[in-house]
Amino acid sequence: MKRQVTIKDIAYKLGLSTSTVSRALKDHPDISSKTRTAVKELAALLGYRPNRIALNLRSNSTRTIGLIIPEIEHYFFSAIINGIEEIAYKNDYSVMVFQSNESYKREVINTNAVLTNRVDGVLVSFSKETNDFSHFQKLIDNEIPVVFFDRTTEDLPADQVVADDYQGAFQAVNHLIEKGCKRIAHFAAPQHLQIGKSRLAGYHDALLKHNIHFSHELVFLADTFETARKTAHEILRKPNAPDGFFAVNDISAIAIIKAAKELGKRVPEDVKVVGFENSKSAAFSDPELTTVDQFGFELGREACLMLLRRLKEGENTDFQPVRKIIRTKLVVRNST
Amino acid sequence: MKRQVTIKDIAYKLGLSTSTVSRALKDHPDISSKTRTAVKELAALLGYRPNRIALNLRSNSTRTIGLIIPEIEHYFFSAIINGIEEIAYKNDYSVMVFQSNESYKREVINTNAVLTNRVDGVLVSFSKETNDFSHFQKLIDNEIPVVFFDRTTEDLPADQVVADDYQGAFQAVNHLIEKGCKRIAHFAAPQHLQIGKSRLAGYHDALLKHNIHFSHELVFLADTFETARKTAHEILRKPNAPDGFFAVNDISAIAIIKAAKELGKRVPEDVKVVGFENSKSAAFSDPELTTVDQFGFELGREACLMLLRRLKEGENTDFQPVRKIIRTKLVVRNST
Repeated sequence: MKRQVTIKDIAYKLGLSTSTVSRALKDHPDISSKTRTAVKELAALLGYRPNRIALNLRSNSTRTIGLIIPEIEHYFFSAIINGIEEIAYKNDYSVMVFQSNESYKREVINTNAVLTNRVDGVLVSFSKETNDFSHFQKLIDNEIPVVFFDRTTEDLPADQVVADDYQGAFQAVNHLIEKGCKRIAHFAAPQHLQIGKSRLAGYHDALLKHNIHFSHELVFLADTFETARKTAHEILRKPNAPDGFFAVNDISAIAIIKAAKELGKRVPEDVKVVGFENSKSAAFSDPELTTVDQFGFELGREACLMLLRRLKEGENTDFQPVRKIIRTKLVVRNST
Repeated sequence: MKRQVTIKDIAYKLGLSTSTVSRALKDHPDISSKTRTAVKELAALLGYRPNRIALNLRSNSTRTIGLIIPEIEHYFFSAIINGIEEIAYKNDYSVMVFQSNESYKREVINTNAVLTNRVDGVLVSFSKETNDFSHFQKLIDNEIPVVFFDRTTEDLPADQVVADDYQGAFQAVNHLIEKGCKRIAHFAAPQHLQIGKSRLAGYHDALLKHNIHFSHELVFLADTFETARKTAHEILRKPNAPDGFFAVNDISAIAIIKAAKELGKRVPEDVKVVGFENSKSAAFSDPELTTVDQFGFELGREACLMLLRRLKEGENTDFQPVRKIIRTKLVVRNST
């Protein structure tokens, strides 16, 4: 049997790197149209066939999926891991998890480990620190399918699965207004994160819909238990304190409830609070927390299904990245 | 340079399997003393030297540690993972985590994945379902160092790191008695688990020390939020209800507080509650929970340090398993 033509052969003959050839075949925008045409013409001439399917059939497929995730402890991410694993194990894949611990440096080490360990595909949610994505490009250049979830980027040609943060925030604030809140504060995440931006936008637009004035004075950067508790203490003491709070996560919402009770205010009678995540703590809190369910388990399942589809269809020269949005849902409990 | 003598050479010459030779060299009790002697004599004759150090120096060391863990979501385990990773990354190892999800079947798949991926060493806390340990024996036979933590077994020749469950439980119940409790209930874990047994024993002995009668009627199997809440509701309604609770974990303790408040009882005035773990929820609960800190982070650090020491010292024919116990500490807050 004739030896199969590889990307290396094309790269060698054209004096290009394999990464350039790989991206040219995928119509990556970084590659000039002249180079793309040259690569495709030579590929056709030599009878190049992408070898992903061959790879999977080879006995050295590891039946392993690599998962790179910022934090394992966070309820949302652990629900995602469980969703991914449900699909993976059903399809005879095992999942190796690498925690970047929100560190760019560890994430690069993890990506190299995933390469060394020859996984079949990779699922990624990147760290808060990550601005450069070239380590992930290395996976793509090595023809390893990658699906990003929750924290995603437009800078790479890859599939994405995300929660509908905007819609979730909009519903949360709409609910507070319908429950009679006149002055609603937002405890926000940092604005360089997409979730920070989208949830603030949902808050903003829900106010707008009800003709309530949006004021920057009611938006606070407070996405941890400690900062949220401290901030809530300060603003609830002032005259004209808010009567409603939309927090960017459950932990901050629980901290607000705690601060309100410490100041002798009743929840939900004096102050209404909505969180975001639907973590276990939301059901444990007193009163139980109204919150937006992010469906981490579903999101993990979808991301894994998307990856398995890519593994099945094989390398594909007219690759079109897919972006899937998972609906969120307001869960009404006793804090509103 | 003369080729080094390997276990395979000894196995071939004696007509034994490599696994038998490996275990004979380690004085494994499953191997007859006759075989052990024969193997050791031949090993000495051929000048066999264990090759763990050679393995590490070879370029095919993956600088990767495999971690097999029942649950990622549980705060205690995620703290352990963080402790392991702190030590690992400092020493240029990356950590790949496999979650068994409390399933024996997945754990076996994970163990095979760890073998396929040629990790340098493995850290294990096994699933609730696991009674047969032969999959782990396979790691040991392949000369991969293994350290067990939290959930351990005496059935394998391997190092162990565990928390001091007995002492932690004893201190918790002693504290309730010193705070004036006369009738203390224990919400226990299943008794086939070592932690279930040890914490019940600590409860029992603390009562004994203060000449308080131990009664089976005050011990309940309730280690989840739902069962603990339901059980607490039932017993707090009865005449002669307990005035103190020692729960086997924080989640059950938080459920007890919730049930007490729902019945109009004040915590800590009417009912005092102690948990076990010192999870984040312990500080979030209202009132904040008195609990036993298990130092998961420290436990993870110790387990990883132990593994790194084994990797450094190399394979070692007079291997003596080490068992390390991590002290626990009572953290007094407002629930007592």
